[in-house]
Amino acid sequence: MRAHLTRRYRFSASHRLHNPALGDAENLRTYGKCSNPHGHGHNYGLAVTVAGQVDPRTGMVCNLADLDAFVERRVLEVFGHEHLNELPQFAGLVPTTENLARVLHRLFAEEFRAAEVEDVQIEETSLNSFAFAGEKEIRK
Amino acid sequence: MRAHLTRRYRFSASHRLHNPALGDAENLRTYGKCSNPHGHGHNYGLAVTVAGQVDPRTGMVCNLADLDAFVERRVLEVFGHEHLNELPQFAGLVPTTENLARVLHRLFAEEFRAAEVEDVQIEETSLNSFAFAGEKEIRK
Amino acid sequence: MRAHLTRRYRFSASHRLHNPALGDAENLRTYGKCSNPHGHGHNYGLAVTVAGQVDPRTGMVCNLADLDAFVERRVLEVFGHEHLNELPQFAGLVPTTENLARVLHRLFAEEFRAAEVEDVQIEETSLNSFAFAGEKEIRK
Amino acid sequence: MRAHLTRRYRFSASHRLHNPALGDAENLRTYGKCSNPHGHGHNYGLAVTVAGQVDPRTGMVCNLADLDAFVERRVLEVFGHEHLNELPQFAGLVPTTENLARVLHRLFAEEFRAAEVEDVQIEETSLNSFAFAGEKEIRK
Amino acid sequence: MRAHLTRRYRFSASHRLHNPALGDAENLRTYGKCSNPHGHGHNYGLAVTVAGQVDPRTGMVCNLADLDAFVERRVLEVFGHEHLNELPQFAGLVPTTENLARVLHRLFAEEFRAAEVEDVQIEETSLNSFAFAGEKEIRK
Amino acid sequence: MRAHLTRRYRFSASHRLHNPALGDAENLRTYGKCSNPHGHGHNYGLAVTVAGQVDPRTGMVCNLADLDAFVERRVLEVFGHEHLNELPQFAGLVPTTENLARVLHRLFAEEFRAAEVEDVQIEETSLNSFAFAGEKEIRK
Repeated sequence: MRAHLTRRYRFSASHRLHNPALGDAENLRTYGKCSNPHGHGHNYGLAVTVAGQVDPRTGMVCNLADLDAFVERRVLEVFGHEHLNELPQFAGLVPTTENLARVLHRLFAEEFRAAEVEDVQIEETSLNSFAFAGEKEIRK
Repeated sequence: MRAHLTRRYRFSASHRLHNPALGDAENLRTYGKCSNPHGHGHNYGLAVTVAGQVDPRTGMVCNLADLDAFVERRVLEVFGHEHLNELPQFAGLVPTTENLARVLHRLFAEEFRAAEVEDVQIEETSLNSFAFAGEKEIRK
Repeated sequence: MRAHLTRRYRFSASHRLHNPALGDAENLRTYGKCSNPHGHGHNYGLAVTVAGQVDPRTGMVCNLADLDAFVERRVLEVFGHEHLNELPQFAGLVPTTENLARVLHRLFAEEFRAAEVEDVQIEETSLNSFAFAGEKEIRK
Repeated sequence: MRAHLTRRYRFSASHRLHNPALGDAENLRTYGKCSNPHGHGHNYGLAVTVAGQVDPRTGMVCNLADLDAFVERRVLEVFGHEHLNELPQFAGLVPTTENLARVLHRLFAEEFRAAEVEDVQIEETSLNSFAFAGEKEIRK
Repeated sequence: MRAHLTRRYRFSASHRLHNPALGDAENLRTYGKCSNPHGHGHNYGLAVTVAGQVDPRTGMVCNLADLDAFVERRVLEVFGHEHLNELPQFAGLVPTTENLARVLHRLFAEEFRAAEVEDVQIEETSLNSFAFAGEKEIRK
Repeated sequence: MRAHLTRRYRFSASHRLHNPALGDAENLRTYGKCSNPHGHGHNYGLAVTVAGQVDPRTGMVCNLADLDAFVERRVLEVFGHEHLNELPQFAGLVPTTENLARVLHRLFAEEFRAAEVEDVQIEETSLNSFAFAGEKEIRK
């Protein structure tokens, strides 16, 4: 029987929604004020859900210390206090929150080994959140 | 690979839980103080989840401006600041929050065209929420 | 040295903002959709702050059980699941949240004896709150 | 068509993460300060999701009064204001929140009869939550 | 007897904490990663508290529609979706949240006429908030 | 002109409300289930408000890094993951949240030097908070 563990983190970053392949008028029509030239920012919320059996010896699906260390080193240190458009992860990619969630989902899927990551959700504001799941459907 | 986008809205309305087909005693037994004759109200929270591919040109599943315009015109203008029992949508239907979620789910399924709506969730109070999904099961 | 204790409660009720002494046009101009004839409702939040010395024997300013019993009997039972305009407390008084806060502040000031009530705050939605304090100014 | 209803509760309890079968050094390595001898505590949040058809007569999936009465008697009275390690439910079981979620999920699955319980989620802090579902997968 | 009304708003913006009069080393020592060259951002929360008598005719301290219109035009349109360092309001002023609160407090004090503004609070993240009050002290 | 900065922290601990100078019956009458022998726990929230002039060079009232370092070392390391009744700070003192707030207020008043601490508030649950201020009254 599988358990699911969801852990939440926060980091602050800025972004500008702008696709250089589109003209200014179309950028404005598509993104509105989110295409303002100097960008704006958010307190992004990250929720990672891992799933698996509960280890009968520890009573845990995954040691939170392992998850925290990974997120600190690979997410918060890398994306926190940055302008997303300036990062190599967003070269040629509009840093919408959909794309941020996709970048982070791939990072967990490829590099986190202590448990199976089921989905990665990014909250952009208290009104919007975006999620990606692996091969199967997402939950929530 | 599909992404999911959840957007939240709020509106205030009132309702009375009362089925005229039941006697007063049974209404009271079923609904308690929620059947008080003049009704009471809530700050309803609406969370709509849409799913789909991320458009490679815009980096979006669905333009939030399209979703906001639909919700403003078809939900907030229609249900906000109203007594649900007085609305044609609840003629012959007890306006429980289950039924409110069902009415809104059907509205999105039939009329919203900018993306596939996966589920509609209504928060009645910070302690209760109710959700409806389409043909497949709901996710949260 | 004084301590302050704030305790929160929730109740659902409905109201209509409408002053019969004003014409329909002025009611609409003043209250907008809040003057719709059948009313609408809220999950009201009540926060009561009491102040006093910490009793050295119990380590308490006020026993929460006493405060809870008072609020249950005099507030939640009376205002919860009601249409405020129909209550005698709002005869001749438009049930704005300012007036609801005033009615509840007076109730605590006149009837609650287990501690000194410093201020009474009503949250109408997560965006609005209204507060009343006693002789001195209110804090928050 | 199925609806889902999620209801939330809160209770305060304490626990110590410590497996007597492991030595002190390994307990410390596994659980860190959570293995401190006198334990620590949380305001646990419980979210129960039930699913089913909406009864056309009542407009409800499940009467909240039935769910509340069950939770009050079988959960809040039993686990609230207790040290989990001292309870018979955790004899031989480390009271991690994964195991608390499992114990409560089994309780609902075996004893709650008024509706089908789909998943049980425990929030340990505002940063962590743990969920269990029945035969099928959980949906957050 | 005075009532207090607090209304909340949200806007997203970015900033960089950097004082050109200090060297790079001191900027880093003072502001840490908040001095990263491209800036980062926040979902700022604004809470405005106005105080006054309740108008016996309307039951209001201040019509929220007036406050909303002012904030929309003078705050959200001006500061929302902007990089604060690029705005004339922050020429020669490090856009810390203390200074943002001061700028907004002065704006309300000088221009808002529909009620007396008592204090202006800016929430930078869910962990930090900053407030300014007028001649008298602030309350919270 | 003074600004106010409020910063929030969280720590988990357990306590038992029990005064050995009172008999068991009176302890039960006073504290109810909070006097259960093995204690229970909370996710305590700490909000510290400091006040002062904004430094024109840094734009800050107080460097958050200084406040964070103090709280980490003197509060979170000391009270987090502990049973309050076992700590020397509560020898002869019932660890009610009023007393916890008082202990922490005195700690800040006596030892924190980077800014003037105006008040210290402890949230015990999302329903209760307790605050202490210095010579003058507390605000909120």
